[in-house]
Amino acid sequence: MIRLDLAYDGRNFFGSQRQKNHRTVQGEIEQVLAILYQQPVSLQLSGRTDSGVHAKHQVGHFRAGLDIPIDRLDYALRSLLPSDIQLLDVSVALADFHARYSAKEKTYQYVLTKRDDVFTRPYKLYLNSDLDLTAMRQAMTDLQGRHDFYAFSNRRKGETSTVRTIHQISYEQLGDDIIVTFRGDGFLYKMVRILMQYLLHVGQGELRPDLTGEIIASRSRELTRKVAPAQGLYLVDIKYD
Amino acid sequence: MIRLDLAYDGRNFFGSQRQKNHRTVQGEIEQVLAILYQQPVSLQLSGRTDSGVHAKHQVGHFRAGLDIPIDRLDYALRSLLPSDIQLLDVSVALADFHARYSAKEKTYQYVLTKRDDVFTRPYKLYLNSDLDLTAMRQAMTDLQGRHDFYAFSNRRKGETSTVRTIHQISYEQLGDDIIVTFRGDGFLYKMVRILMQYLLHVGQGELRPDLTGEIIASRSRELTRKVAPAQGLYLVDIKYD
Repeated sequence: MIRLDLAYDGRNFFGSQRQKNHRTVQGEIEQVLAILYQQPVSLQLSGRTDSGVHAKHQVGHFRAGLDIPIDRLDYALRSLLPSDIQLLDVSVALADFHARYSAKEKTYQYVLTKRDDVFTRPYKLYLNSDLDLTAMRQAMTDLQGRHDFYAFSNRRKGETSTVRTIHQISYEQLGDDIIVTFRGDGFLYKMVRILMQYLLHVGQGELRPDLTGEIIASRSRELTRKVAPAQGLYLVDIKYD
Repeated sequence: MIRLDLAYDGRNFFGSQRQKNHRTVQGEIEQVLAILYQQPVSLQLSGRTDSGVHAKHQVGHFRAGLDIPIDRLDYALRSLLPSDIQLLDVSVALADFHARYSAKEKTYQYVLTKRDDVFTRPYKLYLNSDLDLTAMRQAMTDLQGRHDFYAFSNRRKGETSTVRTIHQISYEQLGDDIIVTFRGDGFLYKMVRILMQYLLHVGQGELRPDLTGEIIASRSRELTRKVAPAQGLYLVDIKYD
């Protein structure tokens, strides 16, 4: 099994997952692998990222013979991948390694900014109102832990349990930016974007922070219908055993 | 006369100048103006920027009646311009204002970097070798002043004189980045990119810095044939009287 560690700028992709007639991260990499191995190669990523979402660290695997030594594969991939996908590392993984199922922890970050700048529009979520960070912190704390996050996810076929553990949600202020970090054992479909939008609603005074527990218990998306934009969202880390 | 002050991320444009079947800065803005004024409007920019070149500050003008008040025009442009063009300001200019011919001074910057990062590839020119900054500084100094820059330009139809004054070429180190600033009364076609490539050749030990005067005097592109990539180049300022 070959493991790829990657970064990508999601701006010009229709998300990570292969789609017909659309430029995707998986599609671009599989195209390069097909050239190198002269046969179709199926890449499995740790999870999908939506259109416009970036990855500072994404992991994928594919099954292939060792007919291409790792150092040559490294060189070939760096030469052939498009400039908005960066190979961080390529390595031989154990036969049972699975980019998705072996993942134990994932970290996402949202970069919010108070400054509208044409160069960072695809990379930071611009907010033209101040946020009540104290209220947001309370909601962040209440979201942490092992919960049924049904109210904070989109239903997706084949997803059995909506129980996940969020180890940490926290924020850091850096100049005009606020960086919100989400760390957990896994995130449901659209979950980070729904959590972020909920926190923004709390920060903008549109929802009370002390309702968090009730919303979780309700298993309803009545108050969590909206999804934050993809701009400013990064997959930043995945931990394996 | 209406003056537009703009910034744009050049990444997804085929340069600034209108081209059939290609997305350009001028083309996108003229399309918005045509919607607003319900007739074709011709925009004149201070100068063209190549494909991939960014502008932190570009200026343009167009002739239009005052049927749209400035504050409404400001609002409409901000709403309708694509997200990679940012309106910095819109104002009524004197009747004889001309974005190109009234310009007295222009400043460009190249951002060079020693660190390859997928998120900054379109915004910084990555160099995988060290530069001899002392040699570069000597060449920068010798390039300053009023010279015939024929050896540092591409011929372009209709360009009469190749004499220009460079007020300043200097650099600044910021972490892994080196920012090179070019300030002059005007720059010929491709001149900044040819100057940058010449300076890189000097910094990489491929050309001797003390040849600068001879190259200028030669009026030949024998040693200045190459053009630095557009990545990392920004139009940053234009001064008018």
